[in-house]
Formats: sequence, C-alpha cells, structure tokens
Amino acid sequence: FSNTYYLMWTEPGNNELTVREGETLSVLNQQVGGGWIEAQNSRGQTGLVPVDYLQVCLSTCLSYLSVCSTAGFEDDDGDDDDGEWDDDWDEGSMEGHAPGMGEVGPVWLYPQSPLDCEVTDPKKGSKMYGLKSYIEYQVIPTSTQRPVNHRYKHFDWLYERLLEKFGSAIAIPGLPDKQVTGRFEEQFIRGRMERLQGWMRRMCRHPVVCQSHVFTLFLTYQDQKEWKLGKRRAERDVAVGQMIFSLMDPEAPEMDSVEVDQKYEQYSRFTKAMDDGVKELLGVGQTHWKRCTGPLPKEYQRIGEAFINLSTVFSSSGYQGESTLTDALTSAGTIYQEVAEIVAEQPKRDLHFLLETNREYKGLLGCFPETLAVHKAAIEKVKDGDKMVAAGRISTQEKTTMKQRLSCMSYSLQAEMNHFHSNRIYDYNRVMQLYLEGQVKFYEEVPL
Amino acid sequence: FSNTYYLMWTEPGNNELTVREGETLSVLNQQVGGGWIEAQNSRGQTGLVPVDYLQVCLSTCLSYLSVCSTAGFEDDDGDDDDGEWDDDWDEGSMEGHAPGMGEVGPVWLYPQSPLDCEVTDPKKGSKMYGLKSYIEYQVIPTSTQRPVNHRYKHFDWLYERLLEKFGSAIAIPGLPDKQVTGRFEEQFIRGRMERLQGWMRRMCRHPVVCQSHVFTLFLTYQDQKEWKLGKRRAERDVAVGQMIFSLMDPEAPEMDSVEVDQKYEQYSRFTKAMDDGVKELLGVGQTHWKRCTGPLPKEYQRIGEAFINLSTVFSSSGYQGESTLTDALTSAGTIYQEVAEIVAEQPKRDLHFLLETNREYKGLLGCFPETLAVHKAAIEKVKDGDKMVAAGRISTQEKTTMKQRLSCMSYSLQAEMNHFHSNRIYDYNRVMQLYLEGQVKFYEEVPL
Repeated sequence: FSNTYYLMWTEPGNNELTVREGETLSVLNQQVGGGWIEAQNSRGQTGLVPVDYLQVCLSTCLSYLSVCSTAGFEDDDGDDDDGEWDDDWDEGSMEGHAPGMGEVGPVWLYPQSPLDCEVTDPKKGSKMYGLKSYIEYQVIPTSTQRPVNHRYKHFDWLYERLLEKFGSAIAIPGLPDKQVTGRFEEQFIRGRMERLQGWMRRMCRHPVVCQSHVFTLFLTYQDQKEWKLGKRRAERDVAVGQMIFSLMDPEAPEMDSVEVDQKYEQYSRFTKAMDDGVKELLGVGQTHWKRCTGPLPKEYQRIGEAFINLSTVFSSSGYQGESTLTDALTSAGTIYQEVAEIVAEQPKRDLHFLLETNREYKGLLGCFPETLAVHKAAIEKVKDGDKMVAAGRISTQEKTTMKQRLSCMSYSLQAEMNHFHSNRIYDYNRVMQLYLEGQVKFYEEVPL
Repeated sequence: FSNTYYLMWTEPGNNELTVREGETLSVLNQQVGGGWIEAQNSRGQTGLVPVDYLQVCLSTCLSYLSVCSTAGFEDDDGDDDDGEWDDDWDEGSMEGHAPGMGEVGPVWLYPQSPLDCEVTDPKKGSKMYGLKSYIEYQVIPTSTQRPVNHRYKHFDWLYERLLEKFGSAIAIPGLPDKQVTGRFEEQFIRGRMERLQGWMRRMCRHPVVCQSHVFTLFLTYQDQKEWKLGKRRAERDVAVGQMIFSLMDPEAPEMDSVEVDQKYEQYSRFTKAMDDGVKELLGVGQTHWKRCTGPLPKEYQRIGEAFINLSTVFSSSGYQGESTLTDALTSAGTIYQEVAEIVAEQPKRDLHFLLETNREYKGLLGCFPETLAVHKAAIEKVKDGDKMVAAGRISTQEKTTMKQRLSCMSYSLQAEMNHFHSNRIYDYNRVMQLYLEGQVKFYEEVPL
C-alpha cells in the first residue's frame, strides 16, 4: 500500500463543488445527508461533495488504514514494501512487543519515524498585570526538538479537538483531572506534568493522531500567530465525528455482516472484561498504596521507636552487663526506622508505575463503550436495511453503501483494537517488569 | 553462705511457745502485733513466738537471700564457695546472660539444679456423669520427669497461694486470662497451654518460688490424697504476706535510710518506665499483628488475584503473541498469593514470641506497684519513728527493729530486682535474636 492518498473528486453537478484531484478543502457541513457533505475550496467557493468519493483526510492526512498481510510480521523481515509499521515500531520504542506471528488483521499505517515528546519545566506565569496566574509547561517533540509552551487549558483544548475529530474511531483518553485548589503546589504540578506527559506520549504513539494537523500544530507551532490561526482553523474543522469513517479506504474486501458482528462482540466483551480487571487492580493497588505509604511505615516507625525507647529504659536500670542487649535494641530500632522509610518510599518506585499505567488504561478503556455504541448503531441500521429498502425509504444502492460503510467502520475498529492490543502488551510487559524488579530490590534492600 | 537455715527460738516466756532449734511450726496468726506471731508445734501446742528471731521459712525452705560478693561474678570463676548461683545459672538455661561484671548487690540464693517444666497434652475430661467438661493438662517437671495432671483452676489455685504468700516481696504475674466462651476450641486451648507453660517456667526460674512447698506439691504430688492434703495445708499456711520479710536473713550490714530511699526511687522509676515501654511495644506490636495477619495479606491476595484475572482477560483477547505477558502476569499473581501466605504466617513465627515475652513482662511489671507500695509504707513508718518514740507510742527498741526490718525488706527488693534484671536481659536478648532472625528469613523467603 502506498503511504499517502489524495482526494478524488467527481465532476460538479447541480450545486456540487468543482474540485481537482489533490485539492485541499474545508468541510463546512457533514450533516447534509444522502452521502454528501458541504465543502469550501481554497478560493472560497462552496458546494456539495459526495462523501463516498473521499478516500483520505483533507489536506495531507487524516487517517491511514492499511491491512496487514496474512503472512504476519515475522515473515516480512527486510521487506521494505510494507515494513513501515513493523520496522519503525519494532525497532523503535516498542521493541520486542509487536505482534510476533500470525495474522492480526487490519492495522493503522504507522509513520516511518515514531513521534514522542517530553513535557517538562513547569513555570509559573501571569497575565492581566499579575491578576491571573497559571503554570506553563514546555513540550518538546522528538520531531523538531524545539520546545513549545502550553498551559493545561491548551492541553484541554487539544483533547477536545481530538475527541471531537477522532472520538468515534479512536480511543482518546481524558486528560488528568482538573483541580482547582492547591494547583500551584509543587507536588500537584509534578504529578500533573507527569500525567500530561503520559497522555501526550500516548497520543504521539497513535499513528492517526500523531499525523493529524491539530496535533502537529500543538507540538510545532512557530509563533503565537501561527498558533492562533491554527486554533481557529482546527475549531472550524467539520471533518469530525463519524464522518472520518467516510475518509478511510481499507483497500480490502468488504467484510460480511457475520464477521462484523463477531468482531463487535469480541471487542465489546474484551474491553468490558479488561475494564473490570483494570479497575480491580487499581482499587486494590490504591488501597495498598495508602497502606504502604501511611499506616504501615508509621507502624514500623513506631516499632523502631518502641525498641529504641526500651533500650533507653534498659540503659537506666543501673544493672551491669546489658550493653549487648541495649546495643541490639537500639540497632533493631534504627533498622526498623530505616525499614519504615524504605517501605514508605517503595510504592513511589514501583507501585506508582503500575497504578499510572492502569490509570491510563482505565482512561483508554472508558472510550470504547462510546466507539462501540457507534459501531453497534451502524450494525443495527444495516440489519434494518432490507426493511427500509422494502418501505422505499432508501434505495438498494444506499443500502449497499451503508454496508460498505459498516465494513469500513469495522476495519477501522479492528485497526484501533490491534493498536490497543500491541500497545497494551508492550505497556504491561514493561510495567510488570519494572514492578517486579522494584519489589525484588525492595526485599533485597531491607537492611536486616 | 550455707544453703539452709533453721528456726532458732528463744526460751518460752508467759504465753510463749517453747520451741527447739530446727523444729517445724505452723503459723496460726501473724497479726498478734508487737513483733510476735502465734504458732503451733508438731505436738499441737500453741503459743507466741517472736517474729524477729525467725531466720528462715517454716519446714525446709521459704526464701533464700544471699549477698553477692562485690568482686563480681567474673572474678569468681572456679571458686565453688559462693558459686551456686553463678555456676548453675550461668551454665544452665540462662547461659551467657548472667550479670557479667561489677557489683549487682543482693541476690536470691539460686538452687543448685535449675527447675523447669513442660505443660503439654491437653485432654478433655468430664465429671458428674458428663455434665461438666474441662481440659486437663499434663505438667512435667524436669526434677521428676513424671507428669502430673492439672486443670486451669488448679493453676489458678496455685497462683492465688503464691500471690498470697510471696506477693509482698516477689513478682507473681497473673495467669493467662480466663475465658468462658470458646474454651474448648483447639486454638484457644493451644494458646492457653502455651501461656500456662510460660507462666510455669517463669515460676520455676524463681529461686524462692521453685523451692516452696506449695509449688513442689503442685509439680510432684504422688496421688489425689497427697494433693488434697497438701492443698489443705497450703490454704492454712499463715506465713504469708509481709510476714515473709521476718523470715529472711540478709546476713549483711543494715542499710542506711538514704540508700533504702535511693533504691526505692530507682526501682520505682525503672519499673514504671519499663512498664510504659513494654505497653508501647505491645500496643504497636498488636496493631502490627492485626495488620500483618489481616488486611495486608488480604491485599497481597487481592493483588495476586487481580494479576491472574488480568492474565485471563488478556488470554481472551484473540490477539497473537502475548503468552509471554500472560505467563508473567499469572506468575506474578501466584507469587503474590504466596507472599500473602508468608506475610500472614510470619507474625506467628517471630512477632508472636516478641509479643508473648512482652505480655509476660507486662504481667511481671504489674506486680511491682504493689510490692513497692509495701516498701514505701515501711519507709514512711520508719521516718515517723522518732515522733512515735517521742510520743511514747513505740519504744526505742521497737524503732530499731523497724529499721532493721526495712533494711531486710530493701535487701529483699534488691534481690528481686536483680533477679528481674538478669531474667529480663536473658529474655530480651533471646527474643530480639529470634525476632530479627525471623524477619531476615522472611525477607529472604519472599519468592521474588
């Protein structure tokens, strides 16, 4: 499959817009119906364009959909024709965790260079002559290595744009919680920054999101003018919501309805089950966190104090020959106070990552019900297709188009699920390794 | 010092009882006053005997008081003259923990062979045609190696006798708590048996208690007849309470009142401070016990379940190549469930002994306020001595006798405190060693 698709337009009809191949359009209204959208070209002319002819996003990219060869990735080694995803990802940040064998079905077309970014260096800023204070973070993408500044509300704006544009097909997890009180406290700022970075890096890893205009704007704007213009353009973007399914071309045979149903059921069941599992782990993990940072070290601390205190009392006995005992008690007491510190710090070293990863996945999994509901509605609509044709409400052609659209949606869902799965395997492998290593170090470190 | 003292009696006066040196008497009334007690000889004759002439217990032994040489124990090696305590104790069950150097002051005269006993083999018995059920324990003293049977109420009877007889001078800790409900449950019986054994062993270790008639009766009675006769005799014993101070002979110079005051203050301060320290350790230890046997392993168990559950969910993904991850998750889950068990069992292996020892010491320390109050009252009485002489309420001779009695009480208190200190050093050395070894094993055992 080639890397880029361009728009292909029909000749203009009644109030149809005349467009040329490769031309960039802005979508004005996607709810025109009957398979048409209202668009505007670069010269300001407006008119209707048939959705079904759209094969790719407006301007350079919206989403890429590619169908993985059935031979699997392992057989593709050294074959550069369809190796973009395989090589870049496998050799890059996700090394060793790409699906290794067999058929995984449709996958998004991954960019040749994986994108990543850093969120760092939070600084307090103010405006309106100091009346309003805010925290500004530096965001440094690997693509340009040039830092751009963003406040939390800019991240929130980006989230809203991504959700609106891709939310029907792609899991766009929410940002870390807003918080009003204490938002200038060091610990809060560090925590928020870490989660913003986690969120940004996850978005960077998504092949559709990372190549989108709005995301690129956010990471690489040159100056305030470009940022403001880009913002306005993004807010006017109407190629959003379910419309993006029309902009995809699976370049694969249409899926039959049984298979579409099965995929839906499978993903629905899996994401629900994983959501439950992640919430369970988060629940017990948070309880464990509280115990390990609160009462447990306090107890070790108090045991240590009790030993040291007893040692002091024993020293005051006036009885001879108990220095061995009082030394042992003091030493045990000191050790317990050290254990208290180690115990209290430990969760920050290992449990933290386990919980953060699961929090991210909770966020991701929270997106699927919505995405799957869109899918389910389309399935039901196609199932009603025959009746609607019989009732004269839609034409046979329209029914066929609906079926094709559903097939396309299903490919999109599969690509998104495959993206989710490969990320999940990578993330959980990594976090389990970190967690268990942390635990081993903990048990080795206890100074007994 | 020789090992045994016999009664020495004055010639009979008005209603005085004529007694011969070495004769055995029963004390009938110790509250006659004026330094006299009413006694009965083996021929049934009764009369008054001056308390101040008593130098040792009725029949063979009551208490032994010896003053340790100022040269200290280390210098006494190989010197058998005053080596009873040193050798038997140092070489016996208390090896390495005898006060090693310097002067410790008065000590009880320890028996040549240390006594110990086992409480074991609890059996359910019944009487009144099965209407009443009870648990009977076997008590096996090292002296005879012959088991005798006792119910809890017999231990309780023994405790009451020892408290009544020795409570003014010796710390007689209470028995493990009585409990009505669930007293036939295996766990309760085991726990009670262990604590009864702890109590018995501590009494065996006390040089005065272990040689007393009533204690010997309890451990070595031959048949029900001897037991019942012995019980009756012990219950009739009137050489109890503060009277036992009259039965002691420190064979040491009279202590001056400043030294008596200092000793009192020192012991009072120490036992109070240690009581606080022990209660603090018990408090935090019990909290820690509950956490380590309850919520903490439950949490590890739940973390384990959450990992295993996530592994199961992941296995159902239908996605290829995640067996490494699901195996790792299952393995981590299993390890956490093992950790849960180890964590839950651990307190029974180490914290248990730490807590039991401290419970015993809490019991022992609870005896000192009473003992010290007796002492304090005697101090105050002697301080009032001059006024009482001036008021003609007591004679100068009686005041001198009071002072001598107080000096004797103070020697007794010192001997008891020295016994307490050497036992304390031994017990805490041992329990800290066991506890820390247990903790080291725990951290090594965790299967990470």
